[in-house]
Amino acid sequence: MAAAFLPATSLRLTPFSTLRFLSFFPISNPSPYSLHRSLRRLPLLQVSPANARRRCCFCTATSQSPSSGDGVKVENNHEHRFGSKVGEFRKKLRIAEVKGGGDEGLGRVGQSLSVTGWVRTLRSQSSVTFIEINDGSCLSNLQCVMNPDAEGYDQVEGGSVLTGASVSVQGTIVASQGTKQKVELKVHKIILVGKCDSSYPIQKKRVSREFLRTKSHLRPRTNTFGAVARVRNTLAYATHKFFQESGFVWVASPIITASDCEGAGEQFCVTTLIPSSHETADTSIDAIPKTKGGLVDWSQDFFGKPAFLTVSGQLNGETYATALSDIYTFGPTFRAENSNTSRHLAEFWMIEPELAFADLDDDMACATAYLQYVVKYVLENCKEDMEFFDTWIEKGIIHRLSDVVEKEFLQLSYTDAIELLLKANKKFDFPVKWGLDLQSEHERYITEEAFGGRPVIIRDYPKEIKAFYMRENDDGKTVAAMDMLVPRIGELIGGSQREERLEVLEARLDELKLDKESYWWYLDLRRYGSVPHAGFGLGFERLVQFATGIDNIRDVIPFPRSPGSADF
Amino acid sequence: MAAAFLPATSLRLTPFSTLRFLSFFPISNPSPYSLHRSLRRLPLLQVSPANARRRCCFCTATSQSPSSGDGVKVENNHEHRFGSKVGEFRKKLRIAEVKGGGDEGLGRVGQSLSVTGWVRTLRSQSSVTFIEINDGSCLSNLQCVMNPDAEGYDQVEGGSVLTGASVSVQGTIVASQGTKQKVELKVHKIILVGKCDSSYPIQKKRVSREFLRTKSHLRPRTNTFGAVARVRNTLAYATHKFFQESGFVWVASPIITASDCEGAGEQFCVTTLIPSSHETADTSIDAIPKTKGGLVDWSQDFFGKPAFLTVSGQLNGETYATALSDIYTFGPTFRAENSNTSRHLAEFWMIEPELAFADLDDDMACATAYLQYVVKYVLENCKEDMEFFDTWIEKGIIHRLSDVVEKEFLQLSYTDAIELLLKANKKFDFPVKWGLDLQSEHERYITEEAFGGRPVIIRDYPKEIKAFYMRENDDGKTVAAMDMLVPRIGELIGGSQREERLEVLEARLDELKLDKESYWWYLDLRRYGSVPHAGFGLGFERLVQFATGIDNIRDVIPFPRSPGSADF
Repeated sequence: MAAAFLPATSLRLTPFSTLRFLSFFPISNPSPYSLHRSLRRLPLLQVSPANARRRCCFCTATSQSPSSGDGVKVENNHEHRFGSKVGEFRKKLRIAEVKGGGDEGLGRVGQSLSVTGWVRTLRSQSSVTFIEINDGSCLSNLQCVMNPDAEGYDQVEGGSVLTGASVSVQGTIVASQGTKQKVELKVHKIILVGKCDSSYPIQKKRVSREFLRTKSHLRPRTNTFGAVARVRNTLAYATHKFFQESGFVWVASPIITASDCEGAGEQFCVTTLIPSSHETADTSIDAIPKTKGGLVDWSQDFFGKPAFLTVSGQLNGETYATALSDIYTFGPTFRAENSNTSRHLAEFWMIEPELAFADLDDDMACATAYLQYVVKYVLENCKEDMEFFDTWIEKGIIHRLSDVVEKEFLQLSYTDAIELLLKANKKFDFPVKWGLDLQSEHERYITEEAFGGRPVIIRDYPKEIKAFYMRENDDGKTVAAMDMLVPRIGELIGGSQREERLEVLEARLDELKLDKESYWWYLDLRRYGSVPHAGFGLGFERLVQFATGIDNIRDVIPFPRSPGSADF
Repeated sequence: MAAAFLPATSLRLTPFSTLRFLSFFPISNPSPYSLHRSLRRLPLLQVSPANARRRCCFCTATSQSPSSGDGVKVENNHEHRFGSKVGEFRKKLRIAEVKGGGDEGLGRVGQSLSVTGWVRTLRSQSSVTFIEINDGSCLSNLQCVMNPDAEGYDQVEGGSVLTGASVSVQGTIVASQGTKQKVELKVHKIILVGKCDSSYPIQKKRVSREFLRTKSHLRPRTNTFGAVARVRNTLAYATHKFFQESGFVWVASPIITASDCEGAGEQFCVTTLIPSSHETADTSIDAIPKTKGGLVDWSQDFFGKPAFLTVSGQLNGETYATALSDIYTFGPTFRAENSNTSRHLAEFWMIEPELAFADLDDDMACATAYLQYVVKYVLENCKEDMEFFDTWIEKGIIHRLSDVVEKEFLQLSYTDAIELLLKANKKFDFPVKWGLDLQSEHERYITEEAFGGRPVIIRDYPKEIKAFYMRENDDGKTVAAMDMLVPRIGELIGGSQREERLEVLEARLDELKLDKESYWWYLDLRRYGSVPHAGFGLGFERLVQFATGIDNIRDVIPFPRSPGSADF
């Protein structure tokens, strides 16, 4: 690997060049030797020349010539003549591992090792230079202490090692004199991998999140956006873990759909009719295929009819739930709403579980268990990042999230919620009346004030304000819908039991003047072994906001899309 | 839950109505009592009336009235008056769990339990009726044996319980007389949940996969598509597990992009300029905004300029890899190619890892470890489904996949591959010559014949046939690209080391007459602390084909999109 740090040499690995064989990733058939190394739990780079011969075996990849003695012995002539083995994959040694654990790295004191990363800060004192290195594996940097006798010091002295530069450092872990960390790296050697131009916009002084949105390609190098990326990743993985451990099957609901039953939401059209490409933004209207009557000729479009980006995978998810019992989707969805707010994205990720043989109570129980699971998982696995958010983004967020994990969630009916709001000693901007939808101010009052910061589920909404597919309750006025409200965000999860009775569903479609023909396949699920089923939807970015305290939804997705903005 | 099975009663749960409290899902704070139950490992429905009072505590969700004695005691008046607790979530007892394990269910003999699912077949003999029930949790059915004295037998006798109907059955697990299974369920009670219309297209006799593509909403109820769905899910989860355990961060690369550097591939345009909706397929050309010159007025489009569906998340992934070290994407990508073949989809899922401080050898090692990990995971976790594929879809697939896990992968250079092909005693349709790309017949010859079914990685391709971002080798003629070839599929994975040298990359863009301005942010990664980095891409549906032996790519994604086809 180090070959690439030294442009003058060959790209191929040499025994001395490897920087990557730092910790061992166990694959199917570890050799006795590599197993031995992993048991030692010290898969570290031995930098002394005496070990050079041994190191050769740890290279991530072998690059023997065909004639190498290490070649695979096989019957096939071709293979013997041409092939050589692919090397073993080894996980990098990351700063999170060096400093991690209960002892914050003290157990590694005396170890020789090597890390790679980017310089966050550099400060020189009379005889010693401190370089803070970050590799994105955790929030905190590795403090590297360097004397003038270290190899490569001339580059530091010459001013080449600046904030933003990429480096590889080798040294020994020592107990730190400072109070900010338990250990630091006493540097024996530094290699400047890539310089950083002085125009680098991510300097030590703080810049606004608005400014950083114009630098979406560099903002993950900041503390805030690095932490958001890690927490987002952890929430995504916890989502998969929760559903997989509960026996749910992940289903890829379609992104492009020409199905008529997505409803009349604001959708993006997906087309190849407009003969545009990145090269030619100048598109003549005349080039668009049209019928004799001057209409767009959809028959010539890629899918032979108008096609759109999905707004929800739910209806498709129901088809798999009524075959596999419990499923979930986790994929992007889209809204072409022209709302340029801190709460809306044109492209966002949704999680939509669907449970067969389940009613609204099961649905609420699942949504509650899911939220508690993922929040607990983040609190346990992203401690340092969460402390950062607690200090810099939202004071008290760890306490708020711990409440979510520990307190029981409450449910109340929409009818009770209206009564509660009417009795509230509070003036709202929007009217409160049975039959009207709850506004964000009402939702936040309920969860933040009336129930003191506890998540609350409102259920059994008037059918007029809810979607056609929700199951009608026996009162004939409400449907088995539920919204989970959480502090700061308001509605985080919305779900319902689905109408599984064919005749009731058909009557509802008629009532709403929806075309039954378009819903033929959705109705089929009620014709052939219909089952009570329920599900919910969760905007993943809302969840990331909830878990990080980040105000603007554009700051919790790597490359936000909104009106006028789809760069990068 | 059972309330929904009995339309005449209230929807709300009653203590006696639950069918769902079958196994316990451990959440953060299990009560001592529920913990006790989970330790017993017998979280089964006790159907005897004597247990009715106890059962009340196991209901998935409580639905106490506000005045219930079980209500939460809190200081807040509102809460006391209005709220009631949300119930605990419990994992369903699935047929896979009933019959699973080394003893195939024998350990459960004598247990009383309840399962829900769909009738696959029903056959009546003189005094006994056999009903095969499937719930999608595994390939095989639960055989249910029923005497005329069982509760609900009248519905069976009356002909209401047909293939496709949904049922809930309660009974006792007994050793099976048959040879096909170790245990069966002696039914005490059957509840017909949903009838199945006689037009149900998924009957016992086999139907073609072509026909089933027109029934995408019902095909997961067949053996083949149920197994594909489970293996696909397992491959997806194994993908997340592999990368998460290796310290990679999942990054959501954008789906919609107005970035100019996606290249000139066949892309779908995403627009709101065409004022269409599902209701009005009649769109007048005149309604499309145009400039005075008769051009499409992109400034009025949602994003203010032409926007497209992504063809790859790689360039965006590189921005996060050069901040967080190692990342992967797993999301949908799109091609508007008009190729109606069994190998192409307009919408498919891609996995694109990107490794910082890594070269091509690291990349190959990672791709190899990844493939071995996920294949091993499927072989271990989808045994029954894999045996089904081995018997009915591709004879010997388990052996072929075991080879992938156990044998070492080989690498050879493109130059050696050309030499090997030229020396091959075989006539190819396409010419073999240094500088020409390898065709599928060449790739399959190499992996299937020359190397006897072993995966092979070809590396160092001529730069003319590879993408602009691939790192130029020292020979000036080739780039550090690699393609992993596997039997039956040909190329499964393609990757490269990326050009990290700013001046080399800029020269390459000039050479290819690409606009450097458009790549400003991509070039920034080389201006500010550039690092050697590498990655690869994997079409997820190709992987599912590889692991299942399914020929047509449209049969390994739930709702395939191809020219003329975006239904459901």
